[in-house]
Amino acid sequence: MLIEAVYHRPKLNWGYPYDRETIHLRLRTKKQDVKQAWAIAGDKYMWEKSKELVPMSIFATDDLFDYWECAVKPPYRRLKYGFKLADDQEEIWMDEDKFGAEEPQMDRLFDIPFINPVDVFTTPEWVKDAVFYQIFPERFANGDTSNDPEGTLPWGGKPEWNNFFGGDLQGIIDHLDHLTELGVNAIYLCPIFKATTNHKYDTEDYMKIDPSFGDEETLKKLVNTCHSKGIRVMFDAVFNHSGKTFAPFVDVQEKGENSKYKDWFHVRKFPLAVEDGIPTYDTFDFEPLMPKLNTENPEVKEYLLGVARYWAEEYGIDGWRLDVADEVDHQFWREFRLTLKNINPDIYILGEIWHESIPWLQGDQFDSVMNYPFKNAVTDFFIKDVTDAQTFSHAIGNQMSRYPRQVAEVAFNLIDSHDTPRALTVAGGDKNRLKLAALFQMTFTGAPCIYYGDEIGMEGEGDPDCRRCMVWEKEEQDRELFAYYQQIIAMRKQYPALRQGTFRFLHSRKGSNELVYERFDEQEKFIIALNSSSEPIDIEIDIKGTHWEDVLENREVELEGGILKYQLPAYGYQVLRCLDKDKKPQQTG
Amino acid sequence: MLIEAVYHRPKLNWGYPYDRETIHLRLRTKKQDVKQAWAIAGDKYMWEKSKELVPMSIFATDDLFDYWECAVKPPYRRLKYGFKLADDQEEIWMDEDKFGAEEPQMDRLFDIPFINPVDVFTTPEWVKDAVFYQIFPERFANGDTSNDPEGTLPWGGKPEWNNFFGGDLQGIIDHLDHLTELGVNAIYLCPIFKATTNHKYDTEDYMKIDPSFGDEETLKKLVNTCHSKGIRVMFDAVFNHSGKTFAPFVDVQEKGENSKYKDWFHVRKFPLAVEDGIPTYDTFDFEPLMPKLNTENPEVKEYLLGVARYWAEEYGIDGWRLDVADEVDHQFWREFRLTLKNINPDIYILGEIWHESIPWLQGDQFDSVMNYPFKNAVTDFFIKDVTDAQTFSHAIGNQMSRYPRQVAEVAFNLIDSHDTPRALTVAGGDKNRLKLAALFQMTFTGAPCIYYGDEIGMEGEGDPDCRRCMVWEKEEQDRELFAYYQQIIAMRKQYPALRQGTFRFLHSRKGSNELVYERFDEQEKFIIALNSSSEPIDIEIDIKGTHWEDVLENREVELEGGILKYQLPAYGYQVLRCLDKDKKPQQTG
Repeated sequence: MLIEAVYHRPKLNWGYPYDRETIHLRLRTKKQDVKQAWAIAGDKYMWEKSKELVPMSIFATDDLFDYWECAVKPPYRRLKYGFKLADDQEEIWMDEDKFGAEEPQMDRLFDIPFINPVDVFTTPEWVKDAVFYQIFPERFANGDTSNDPEGTLPWGGKPEWNNFFGGDLQGIIDHLDHLTELGVNAIYLCPIFKATTNHKYDTEDYMKIDPSFGDEETLKKLVNTCHSKGIRVMFDAVFNHSGKTFAPFVDVQEKGENSKYKDWFHVRKFPLAVEDGIPTYDTFDFEPLMPKLNTENPEVKEYLLGVARYWAEEYGIDGWRLDVADEVDHQFWREFRLTLKNINPDIYILGEIWHESIPWLQGDQFDSVMNYPFKNAVTDFFIKDVTDAQTFSHAIGNQMSRYPRQVAEVAFNLIDSHDTPRALTVAGGDKNRLKLAALFQMTFTGAPCIYYGDEIGMEGEGDPDCRRCMVWEKEEQDRELFAYYQQIIAMRKQYPALRQGTFRFLHSRKGSNELVYERFDEQEKFIIALNSSSEPIDIEIDIKGTHWEDVLENREVELEGGILKYQLPAYGYQVLRCLDKDKKPQQTG
Repeated sequence: MLIEAVYHRPKLNWGYPYDRETIHLRLRTKKQDVKQAWAIAGDKYMWEKSKELVPMSIFATDDLFDYWECAVKPPYRRLKYGFKLADDQEEIWMDEDKFGAEEPQMDRLFDIPFINPVDVFTTPEWVKDAVFYQIFPERFANGDTSNDPEGTLPWGGKPEWNNFFGGDLQGIIDHLDHLTELGVNAIYLCPIFKATTNHKYDTEDYMKIDPSFGDEETLKKLVNTCHSKGIRVMFDAVFNHSGKTFAPFVDVQEKGENSKYKDWFHVRKFPLAVEDGIPTYDTFDFEPLMPKLNTENPEVKEYLLGVARYWAEEYGIDGWRLDVADEVDHQFWREFRLTLKNINPDIYILGEIWHESIPWLQGDQFDSVMNYPFKNAVTDFFIKDVTDAQTFSHAIGNQMSRYPRQVAEVAFNLIDSHDTPRALTVAGGDKNRLKLAALFQMTFTGAPCIYYGDEIGMEGEGDPDCRRCMVWEKEEQDRELFAYYQQIIAMRKQYPALRQGTFRFLHSRKGSNELVYERFDEQEKFIIALNSSSEPIDIEIDIKGTHWEDVLENREVELEGGILKYQLPAYGYQVLRCLDKDKKPQQTG
């Protein structure tokens, strides 16, 4: 047994309260090295009487490791624990300090001292059932030409970094039927506050809606109409930096050290200047027009928390997506969470972080992050076809291992966005590839997000081309693709197991494009099979169940001996739902 | 190279800002597997221009792993980084997702997005230079017989769990000369608030000094006198649970569900009762007399934070030691830290945690913890002689790897306490063993603490015997031991390198009791050699320096060729200070 590969540490993603009663314990071992693992767990104040061996099972696997998990419900909310590992040759015990052949002394074990409810990392239930739709307001629909900015171009022109097409809030209201028809139940709205650019990430006034987007009345109407249709609304908060026209920054530019706002930013040297391409103050990137806000300054903090509070309280928004969230201080986000969850415990706090995010995902800051690692894995396997099923399953497995389960359940699973080329374009216009990616998105843990227009086959290279005007002429929309999106969204909404059930890869072999996985909860069991290649693939797999429904084809399937054996065509896919009454699926965790 | 053994994760103890300019990066590899390691590090917004390879060095080692470290100062406070590892056969790169032969793409690397000053984990400077003295007030000195509780026994009697000897605050004031003579500069005072027991861990009133200990005037005099003598004072906060006579608990006992304090505790079922040995409410252990406080309840939080604030503001105390700190919620401790550090950024926040403590040591809660792992290692090697030098050095190395360096610098390094048998007694009365343990304590990173009376040879088995009355008759004190303590404390105070310099084991072999280690900073270099056995040991080691001072013997030593070669007698020890002018010691980190 390779003990150097074994890893566990209390809290984080390794040992955490999942809810007020349940602790998840996880352990990493070398891939295919350990045959069985157990947690030894009990109450430290009555150890001998309470201790028990709890079997663990592998819930994820990647290139190098297997990840084991079990759930324990300590009756007095205290858990002392260690691990026991077995292979064919030996049994090894693990405590906080060492590995050994003997059962460890209780006082050397790991410790989760007490499940205090306030420390239980609770993420919003509604997000677990959400399908998001991302809207870039300037390009979605022009519902009110009276507020068009000067020089607005005719709808449908070529997007440039600095041109305008007149999209606005009324345009969104006008087209909410498109969203309900599609079946999404949440909007992620890119910034709408007063700013100079078309993307509005250079805020001028956090308390005002951009006049070219509409006014407060229109916004209220948008949010209320959405809510009446069962659609949640998430705003975009750009708190890392402001725009160049933000009044405090204008003041510092003018008055330098004499400005009363001089401590609102991180100025290294007055006056503000750019020397050899480097601003004399901290910025986003080295962009002089996006000065980094000093979020430690109590005045700035009060102002920005006030902003977050205002839109949540006055407009009842359901979430904040936090731009460049990783460069803002942790203490600010802790206060942000307390402030927002105090107004509405269901508000969704989503950080834009592209890299490992555990420092923000311990329960005191964000609910989850933009899942770019998910996007990368999906893009490489389904869209670009540059990895095989094994590499894909390992990338996904690695992601599953990184965060507590409640984070994964509300991960924001995107396949493209306003910051990336459109998936269909990356796929060379091959919509079969997009369909497979979307089907995986709709049958995986976490909230899928559709970037506006993907559902009707819009294309676009990287920014600014990915920000084209939405196509509203039905004859120019890919309605077949739209119907497909409708169908897979409806399927996800119909079956909780496809959202929150246990996820497990069944077939994901090296060199192969065949991917088979299952999802199950206590009620239902699904098998999903995908062929991400241009050649048919022969599938043969024992899925233990003879009577199935092909959900997307809406027909019954009988499998002899429970063996799924047939040829999946090029880019084929199939979602099977078990109809066997006596098959109580096995649920882990 | 065994890549399964390689571990790194941003933040925590692995990659963290040490100060506002410096990031420490650490990496774990299999023991003696990797020959050289580098970090590749730079600014993500000008990667190609800024990236550099920074060599790492091994700063700690344990049974299974080597731990590498380097320090980086990113000019714009942003750090993107990965690692490069080399052995004789190959070079391997590591990024956030994988190991590979090619230099990783920048966007797949690890990320410390921005050093925000408020997130820099800052621990009090004074603690790095402190030598603590722990006082159990009821047993230190009786300075005022007028406040003796009923039934007070003559000083020096046999301690029982429920008897009293009249120790009080005036007694401490009367004997501060003992502390200054010894050389300590900080007191850790066990609880002094009104309570029924002799140990006062069952608080009745957090706002009142126990009448048998004195009044507020005496306490003010004690704290002020200490401060005038350069002695800091740390109090003991028992916030996990109260005593049975705490008024809100009395009220709940009387009125049950109708008590306005019913939510001050964690009551599972009214009325309060004990069923089959289990209280119907949460407690410390299963002890019905110590009800767990509901620290999430805003009223309780306000009350307890008010207590912490009151004694810090009104009496100017320098630290809070937090009893059973791990069972209280994290959110309470976050607010506790903000409250206290706002009054005095130098206040020392010390948690009583016996196990792995990283969840409390990320900068938002405690400064450090009671270092029981240190006590265990020192006890096993020096005091009980049940481990060898290698096991000892691995235990210490493992501890060094677990937390950021700023935590280790203010660790509370004890060898015994009111909760353990006295070290001298565990050593079977062999004071040679105690001397070696104390010398290690005084030459290691972190604040040493002397349990009252250890310095004069007091003995005692576990609680209550370890809480004997302090011996004040000089003829009954071990004055030779006292002089030794004086000497090693003075030495620690004289040389900063012995407190904060780099620590490195030089000789710590399997099966041997010989321990040689060095400490150095940019000014000084020390070699410390200890023989923790009853037999003389022949030492031979190249310590690279010919001209040395034997600090404890106060004499110069010439070493031919820089080789330390002589026989260290049974229980022998030697502290050598390098006198070579041209030897600029090499400093890591």
